[in-house]
Amino acid sequence: MNATVADLIAKHRPTLDAALGAIRSRTYYTHFPDSPKAYPAEAKDAALSTFEGRRGRSWTWGQTGADGTVVGKERSPYGFDLEISYDHMDLDVLLPAMSAAMPAWRDAGAEARAAVCIEILSRLNTRTYDMAFAAMHTTGQAFMMAFQAAGANAQDRGLEAVAYGYSALTAHPDRAVWEKPGKGEPVRLAKKWVAAPRGIALVVGCNTFPTWNGYPGLFASLVTGNAVVVKPHPHAVAPLALTVATAREVLVEAGFDPDLVALAPEAEGEGLAKTLALRPEVRIVDFTGSNEFGDWLEQNVRQAQVYTEKAGINTIIVDSFRPEEYQAALGHLAFSLSLYTAQMCTSPQNILIPRDGVGVGTEVKSPEEFGADLAGAIDALLGEDGRATAILGAVVNPFILERLERAAGVGKTVLASRAVIHPEFPDATVRTPLIAAVDAADSEVYTREWFGPISFLISTDSTRESIELYRDTVKAHGALTAAVYSTSDEVVDAAEEATWEAGANLSINLTGPVYVNQSAAFSDYHGTGANPAANATYADLAFVAGRFRFIQSRRPA
Amino acid sequence: MNATVADLIAKHRPTLDAALGAIRSRTYYTHFPDSPKAYPAEAKDAALSTFEGRRGRSWTWGQTGADGTVVGKERSPYGFDLEISYDHMDLDVLLPAMSAAMPAWRDAGAEARAAVCIEILSRLNTRTYDMAFAAMHTTGQAFMMAFQAAGANAQDRGLEAVAYGYSALTAHPDRAVWEKPGKGEPVRLAKKWVAAPRGIALVVGCNTFPTWNGYPGLFASLVTGNAVVVKPHPHAVAPLALTVATAREVLVEAGFDPDLVALAPEAEGEGLAKTLALRPEVRIVDFTGSNEFGDWLEQNVRQAQVYTEKAGINTIIVDSFRPEEYQAALGHLAFSLSLYTAQMCTSPQNILIPRDGVGVGTEVKSPEEFGADLAGAIDALLGEDGRATAILGAVVNPFILERLERAAGVGKTVLASRAVIHPEFPDATVRTPLIAAVDAADSEVYTREWFGPISFLISTDSTRESIELYRDTVKAHGALTAAVYSTSDEVVDAAEEATWEAGANLSINLTGPVYVNQSAAFSDYHGTGANPAANATYADLAFVAGRFRFIQSRRPA
Repeated sequence: MNATVADLIAKHRPTLDAALGAIRSRTYYTHFPDSPKAYPAEAKDAALSTFEGRRGRSWTWGQTGADGTVVGKERSPYGFDLEISYDHMDLDVLLPAMSAAMPAWRDAGAEARAAVCIEILSRLNTRTYDMAFAAMHTTGQAFMMAFQAAGANAQDRGLEAVAYGYSALTAHPDRAVWEKPGKGEPVRLAKKWVAAPRGIALVVGCNTFPTWNGYPGLFASLVTGNAVVVKPHPHAVAPLALTVATAREVLVEAGFDPDLVALAPEAEGEGLAKTLALRPEVRIVDFTGSNEFGDWLEQNVRQAQVYTEKAGINTIIVDSFRPEEYQAALGHLAFSLSLYTAQMCTSPQNILIPRDGVGVGTEVKSPEEFGADLAGAIDALLGEDGRATAILGAVVNPFILERLERAAGVGKTVLASRAVIHPEFPDATVRTPLIAAVDAADSEVYTREWFGPISFLISTDSTRESIELYRDTVKAHGALTAAVYSTSDEVVDAAEEATWEAGANLSINLTGPVYVNQSAAFSDYHGTGANPAANATYADLAFVAGRFRFIQSRRPA
Repeated sequence: MNATVADLIAKHRPTLDAALGAIRSRTYYTHFPDSPKAYPAEAKDAALSTFEGRRGRSWTWGQTGADGTVVGKERSPYGFDLEISYDHMDLDVLLPAMSAAMPAWRDAGAEARAAVCIEILSRLNTRTYDMAFAAMHTTGQAFMMAFQAAGANAQDRGLEAVAYGYSALTAHPDRAVWEKPGKGEPVRLAKKWVAAPRGIALVVGCNTFPTWNGYPGLFASLVTGNAVVVKPHPHAVAPLALTVATAREVLVEAGFDPDLVALAPEAEGEGLAKTLALRPEVRIVDFTGSNEFGDWLEQNVRQAQVYTEKAGINTIIVDSFRPEEYQAALGHLAFSLSLYTAQMCTSPQNILIPRDGVGVGTEVKSPEEFGADLAGAIDALLGEDGRATAILGAVVNPFILERLERAAGVGKTVLASRAVIHPEFPDATVRTPLIAAVDAADSEVYTREWFGPISFLISTDSTRESIELYRDTVKAHGALTAAVYSTSDEVVDAAEEATWEAGANLSINLTGPVYVNQSAAFSDYHGTGANPAANATYADLAFVAGRFRFIQSRRPA
């Protein structure tokens, strides 16, 4: 082991141990602070300069396999082209180089790899402002959300994956003496086990959360000994370019081959993810994105272990409220429906409400009244353009505008979407949420995902029907999140029981600063793998244990 | 929890704890003794009576879903028909009943399920002689091997799977209070996690090791909360019928629905494994058997997690011997090539030897001389018919005889196969091993599996070429086991390095009572999942962690 690696182990072992403790208790834990106060104030301006300095230029780090052409057509949802170009790869050069890098990484062992991974995350942490601008102007997230979600929160999810990977690697010794008692001398064998990587791991990045959704797979594969090729979404390359460049920098410093982590950006429409996912060298695929491509990967990629986080029909069951919590609950729901223009795979879509109304203390609110109250809460939340854009961010993709137009013709519009002028970026595309009222009978409307700020207030015969509808639609179509609001223990119990079958993650009567669409690293699971919305979760042992294999030798001792 | 379950936990917790310790250290551990001395002597005669009593009759336990027809055409490789018939199932009745049984099993929790599983294994242990006759007369194993492999050793593999499953289930709390510090009051959420089963698990049994290869998947799925339907090989139903009947008996006693474990035997040629594997209710498949069907499962079963143990080209690299170990090594190899007529998926097939010969001290043995010495060792081992049949058992399937005929025309026959008359069962089909000498250039011969007592002595240019050939053929075609004989540390190191890439389990210079084709529960892995011979291993966390999903609820605390 070289001195740098030994230093990194000494430096990061306490962090690793704390993370290992956190995944055992799954209580509150964070390593990377998500408050800007924890970072030097001048870093923001420097990062903005860095970001501006990258525009209109080629962002390159001399990666093995660059084929001499460049790609890149990123456009900020805030209304301008980034004009950053990236090296396009010759896979027949890149992938063999990555394969060749693996044996030394495997032989370094779990502790060294974990330390290097944590150093990469820590280095990324020092570049959180840099990441914030890269993420904001590719995902359309508001600056503060990009700072937190693409920065510290993503880093925490990466650390969580490192901890799970290390935990699985060390669930088992690397040597043992096996002694079988016998009549005379016992039989003694000396056994050795090596955790061998599966091969090259492919991370297919998404447009909305390239790092938060990319880091779990990236770091789970890397810590378990694999090389990782990152294929970013063509509209969100910069955050993963910063990630890969940083990882390579740390790998070189620690004495490893930088080709253990590589970027493979694609020309728009190239279909590089399919090509990569079917390469025989690729033995692991982590994907976040559309059900269509995720399902394709699950159905067609046979040589690799495939982990998918797709989308679903996140559902809220509304039954009854304590009167003193009603306003808080409405404000809370308004925020959940507005945050990042509901462009989160965890944003609620279906709100199930009994047609006889919901109880608020002794009062009964009809679906129409509840809809009006919720619309009012959203109007209040988003009434001021500056505050609205800080919550909404910008619309990441034009198809969301088309979908909003279609949704305006569905059912009865409870709340219409409106355009908001961004005070700083007048060309940004900003929209407020739309809510449409439909009936439980209109299942063709609400049993598919309307990605973006569109939700349905669905009248059901009763809360019992709501719970059945929730269970059945989620089992059939998937969901990452669900929520229930009820003052009745029986209703909450029934919603939980339905949840164990439907496989969503349920929030109960939340009114405070944690929202149904948020999941905290080290405690909340993101996805379950138990319904069509995802075949894996961030993170558990199943997410890491199949990324490597124990190989054995034994000899007389 | 009912009193019986509480009693079972009290009774079996020490066994569970010992097994949990053993999977951490992977040193020598066994719970179920495999020496007949540990069992009452009179049990053998009673078991023989039981076995004879089952012949010519219907073996039924009134399982939900019996469709009124019976199936069963088992024939003992020792030369007689068993004439046992079993209830055929209506899957549209059986599978819904199994699904309905799962919630209570899930709610019982990991410790209760582990205790019930260990009670099933312990009950099976009391029926080890019974199992021995059932296994002997379906698999063709010699009685003592059937007693050990289908009895105690299989039970240990089952216990190992229970321990891994319990370990993965409890890597995580079922409740936590999450408290995030804030400016004023901290935010507190009470979180709850349920380990939810994936669904119905299918175990597809094999002809040669129905219990040893069946128990890991069966008990891994059962302990993690799933119901298990067992589809036995049509020629080896009895061992799994005894298993399922015993499991159902224990489940009823413990207050659970017996349909959590069910047998689904098929008419010959019915193709029931395919039908079951594609049923939407089936979410886990464990298969042991041919590459052809295993590959089909891996390629076509998309709704279920598929674990396969197939076959490969187990390889022995012969480089050099210490003179005092040469005879022992030959005897050892002779046993490996003869045990159960090499009908083990772990039996060696390819023996790689430098054409310039192997060193035995200062002497050099040419491939011809080494082949003659090995043939002599086999002749000596199998010279006496009683001893020979106790090692060889009987030929399980006529296709092995056809293959032996074909092999007699391949290369140069070093050792011809001969028929042995079984002293007790004159109609038994018993054959000794065949060895053919070929050249490394004859890859079309040795790069496929010749299941049965056929091996090839393959001349290579050098040990270096042997190691490369080993690595490349195993990467391409798979292997479960490998061995190297060398006095050179460099050769052994190179063989190990090749092994980490090829993903076989390597035995080095074994001459004692542990053979390359044997793997001990709790210490040796069986399969690695790292080459085409298997996509999983008995047992590690990857084998169990994907059999259940953590589902979460959270609420203000």
